[in-house]
Amino acid sequence: MVTPVAFADPPLLNAAGVHQPWALRAIIQVRTGSGLVGLGETYGDADHLALLRRAAPALRGLDVFDTNGLTARVAAVLRGADAPDAHGLTGPTSPQKSLARVVAPYEVALLDLAGQLTDRPVHALLGGKVRDAVPFAAYLFYKWDRHPGGEPDAWGAALDPDGIVAQARAMVDRYGFRSLKLKGGVFEPDAEIAAVRALRRAFPDLPTRLDPNAAWTPQTSTRVAAELAGELEYLEDPTPGRVGMAEVAAAASMPLATNMCVVAFDHLPEAVRLGSVGVVLGDHHYWGGLRASAQLAAICATFGLGLSMHSNSHLGISLAAMVHLAAATPTLSYACDTHIPWAEDDIVTAPLSIVDGAVPVPDAPGLGVRLDEAALDRLHRQYLACGIDRRDDEAYLRTVDPGFTRRVAAW
Amino acid sequence: MVTPVAFADPPLLNAAGVHQPWALRAIIQVRTGSGLVGLGETYGDADHLALLRRAAPALRGLDVFDTNGLTARVAAVLRGADAPDAHGLTGPTSPQKSLARVVAPYEVALLDLAGQLTDRPVHALLGGKVRDAVPFAAYLFYKWDRHPGGEPDAWGAALDPDGIVAQARAMVDRYGFRSLKLKGGVFEPDAEIAAVRALRRAFPDLPTRLDPNAAWTPQTSTRVAAELAGELEYLEDPTPGRVGMAEVAAAASMPLATNMCVVAFDHLPEAVRLGSVGVVLGDHHYWGGLRASAQLAAICATFGLGLSMHSNSHLGISLAAMVHLAAATPTLSYACDTHIPWAEDDIVTAPLSIVDGAVPVPDAPGLGVRLDEAALDRLHRQYLACGIDRRDDEAYLRTVDPGFTRRVAAW
Repeated sequence: MVTPVAFADPPLLNAAGVHQPWALRAIIQVRTGSGLVGLGETYGDADHLALLRRAAPALRGLDVFDTNGLTARVAAVLRGADAPDAHGLTGPTSPQKSLARVVAPYEVALLDLAGQLTDRPVHALLGGKVRDAVPFAAYLFYKWDRHPGGEPDAWGAALDPDGIVAQARAMVDRYGFRSLKLKGGVFEPDAEIAAVRALRRAFPDLPTRLDPNAAWTPQTSTRVAAELAGELEYLEDPTPGRVGMAEVAAAASMPLATNMCVVAFDHLPEAVRLGSVGVVLGDHHYWGGLRASAQLAAICATFGLGLSMHSNSHLGISLAAMVHLAAATPTLSYACDTHIPWAEDDIVTAPLSIVDGAVPVPDAPGLGVRLDEAALDRLHRQYLACGIDRRDDEAYLRTVDPGFTRRVAAW
Repeated sequence: MVTPVAFADPPLLNAAGVHQPWALRAIIQVRTGSGLVGLGETYGDADHLALLRRAAPALRGLDVFDTNGLTARVAAVLRGADAPDAHGLTGPTSPQKSLARVVAPYEVALLDLAGQLTDRPVHALLGGKVRDAVPFAAYLFYKWDRHPGGEPDAWGAALDPDGIVAQARAMVDRYGFRSLKLKGGVFEPDAEIAAVRALRRAFPDLPTRLDPNAAWTPQTSTRVAAELAGELEYLEDPTPGRVGMAEVAAAASMPLATNMCVVAFDHLPEAVRLGSVGVVLGDHHYWGGLRASAQLAAICATFGLGLSMHSNSHLGISLAAMVHLAAATPTLSYACDTHIPWAEDDIVTAPLSIVDGAVPVPDAPGLGVRLDEAALDRLHRQYLACGIDRRDDEAYLRTVDPGFTRRVAAW
């Protein structure tokens, strides 16, 4: 069963525009004949939703461990269909990536079932946990204090270095994060350099990252990298493309990271050859699931690439899947990203919690989270009522600034 | 429990010398508290045996799915120990490769247990089978008709093209193989070219490979590749090292394959960068087990490398492990190697059989083979009596030809 849901999302700014008032997700429930339910969570955009629904019947009769069968069956059903991705914040789409995106939540649901059936947590089925808690970074955003026409949210505005530092303070106080990530690509580069410097002064012990989502030219990227030498744990997707990234990487003192120019297995050979990046931000939602992400980890380890984890706005099923994956990935070299602090709602009964900047790894069978049926119903009704059926940060920002276009190598 | 065994082996010639009268293996039995037994099989050389025994206590209390835990525990016990490998036919040893070699049979045994516990074949736990039968190649060897001082064996001599064709005929008739592999590096290259041509005339429909185990210089390799253009499915390890292989690969019309210059994950970046090989022959016995081999497969698929499977003299537990791995590896692009036709004995009650050149994939829980306790006892006594405690093809050939040295880039 595929259920689209919507949950309130603050006006978080990025190079593509601004988050709409509602973030969309699709909740997957896979039922066994014996009545067990496996959970998955993924994007809720209309085109993706259509592919998810097209794929669902293909699972009938599949063994819960059969990842190869799942992939083959879904591929046979999708026949090269590609779901466009309006925001473009995770790189270009392709039929291969669409297949991986459709397979992923079903694979998670099957692993949840496999864990329940074998009385083991999902991390045990992924090779065994190598850590008891998974560190996450505070994910800082420039933001307005409210959606246009709405009420102020609890976070307040963050439109300059002081606002970002205050946001970081609130987030670190509440969750104990031990590293920081600033979503950039919103203001001109010097303003974002100033924000990073302010964060470094306020939190000198916390490794910090900056992610302008490819808003800069290679020249600007190289200048920013030079100005922030010694200040950044990594610089994430400063500029578009593996060639431009390689140009910046050759000059930058810190590693470059990406979830835009290496977002599928067939991007890796060129990235390795060119030296485009030092760190790949994996994301099981579009790399094809937890096992495919483990293969990505093996490739990164073999080719000397660091590994971190990307996040989109998500709820507690995705968080659990991310935590199990990270727990069983020996070579994860950085704190993971998560949008969880920005989501005030959830669809699991007892969401995993962030303690001292890390999520304790659950050892209950499967994913270790249960669906909150009432919340699912409520968030589904929100989906039906919200009037949004696909993410489009650019169009939403245009309602305020009609001349806005998504920033790609714009500075 | 680690039990060394020996089984009779014919005098198979190769670049390192000739197979001794007895091939050694170590049989692993891992028992659960509930009395289940998981099986593994690996090399039986004395130094490796010592490391296996040192590692065995590290398994106590480990979950059967916990590959990461197994690797960490064995690494902690071995502390960088390296077991030398006298024959050198699978490339140089290293502490990393020794660790992988020790982990591998234990991981297989744990997966055998995991399959029994979850009532699933091992291939299901590796992602699901993608084929119902695993094709193998006829593994042809130059050979004497008998061991020095012994009785003639059933296969007879094969010391020229006619002998090789007769051997191939016997093997194809008995097992239905649909591809051929000739172990070379024994006679001067022109003699082996003649043998390949004779095989191609006799079996024009069967893809054929030649493996001189790095006995040739790059120059000779390039000449042989040119003379055999259009005749070989791939040319395996013509010359030593990733640099020499790359030189040959650049000139050769057929892919080069290897189980000598890429035998550990840290060899892959250079091989990819240089273009040393087009095909990697994986082998779970030294790549660290079935899951590590699946990671190798993912890397090969990502970087456009073909994948085949290497074999050393082995018995039915290894064959089962190889078949489960191959069954669950979508990107296996060639028939696998196996020495099984050369082994007249086995230690499993009902060995998997080769039918029409392929092994039907077993669907019974675990590996699907059971230990023949009487055979284990008999082969262990053979081990104790045979007077061999490590493989040394070179020293054995010297008993006949005192001036012999292993051929490395010798022609």
